[in-house]
Amino acid sequence: MTTTAVAADSSRRDTRQRLIDVAVELFIQHSFAGTSLQMIADELGFTKAAIYHHFRTREQLLDAVVEPFLERLRDVISEAEGLRGAHARADHMLTGFAQLAVENRVVSVLASDPAVARMLRASREWDALIERQMALLADVNPGPAGHVKASVVLSGIASASGPTFAGIDRDDLLAYLVETGRRALGLRVPRAQS
Amino acid sequence: MTTTAVAADSSRRDTRQRLIDVAVELFIQHSFAGTSLQMIADELGFTKAAIYHHFRTREQLLDAVVEPFLERLRDVISEAEGLRGAHARADHMLTGFAQLAVENRVVSVLASDPAVARMLRASREWDALIERQMALLADVNPGPAGHVKASVVLSGIASASGPTFAGIDRDDLLAYLVETGRRALGLRVPRAQS
Repeated sequence: MTTTAVAADSSRRDTRQRLIDVAVELFIQHSFAGTSLQMIADELGFTKAAIYHHFRTREQLLDAVVEPFLERLRDVISEAEGLRGAHARADHMLTGFAQLAVENRVVSVLASDPAVARMLRASREWDALIERQMALLADVNPGPAGHVKASVVLSGIASASGPTFAGIDRDDLLAYLVETGRRALGLRVPRAQS
Repeated sequence: MTTTAVAADSSRRDTRQRLIDVAVELFIQHSFAGTSLQMIADELGFTKAAIYHHFRTREQLLDAVVEPFLERLRDVISEAEGLRGAHARADHMLTGFAQLAVENRVVSVLASDPAVARMLRASREWDALIERQMALLADVNPGPAGHVKASVVLSGIASASGPTFAGIDRDDLLAYLVETGRRALGLRVPRAQS
């Protein structure tokens, strides 16, 4: 590529990332269904045509928002599945998920917005990931009780990672979320935290 | 009132209730922002004019959906505040909230939909209620850790009371939710449940 082409490519990537960042903020405030491409364009001072250059539909934009999170979630799940013992697997899944939730603001949207949940469930890969994630947490306590616990923990952590505790130090928030999850699932809570 | 007027009044109330019921189901499926009055009209085979006869805006409809839940929440909070001891107060708040969540399908919408949360926060009464509710649960473990725990428990229970566990017996679901909440908050879990 020529220098000009490289610069154009990097500026294109920057614009794409800005679009994604603004979309996440608007999804958090207004829900996915309540955010239009027009609102995203207005927020950035872009024309709708400029948005179309990167994303043809709101759904394509959601995919781009979700993909980096999905990739890391896949890794956490595979790592957890490779461990021995139901408690160790659940603990790795819990801490990995809490870490993702604290780092990535999109998790609170994914977990809470029914329109997003419906779109994601339409993808079979997502469905399979959620099932593996739930199984890792629920196996500590087999049967429906374990599944209900796992669901309370996952959605509770996702939701508490949203705007409510924006003022709390991220490391502290992570520690509180992990401790709450461990207690709820009946996992060992290290001394220093109890 | 004449017999005819009484019948008309009761039929008007029935229609209003059907509207509310259908609205809740559509909010659960499509989120509040993703549900239009037109969709509600279509679902019932009504004209939009027939809906306007009862509710001028989607916001008025949301108020009608939320009001019965709010009334019971107020009662649970006041009862809990009347008890002696942080643990007893938290336990009453937790079990009362879980009961409401299991009985009233709208709780999963209220807790999860950012557009609904924003509208509700605009009401000062709602804000005050949420604060009292959080304080009752968080006082068991003062400081930010207690608030994070309380938030995980409330939103986790609200979300798990949604469509995910529609197949589980309601009494069983309630018992699982309460046990999970007690463990997460560090409250006593009665023998039979542990």
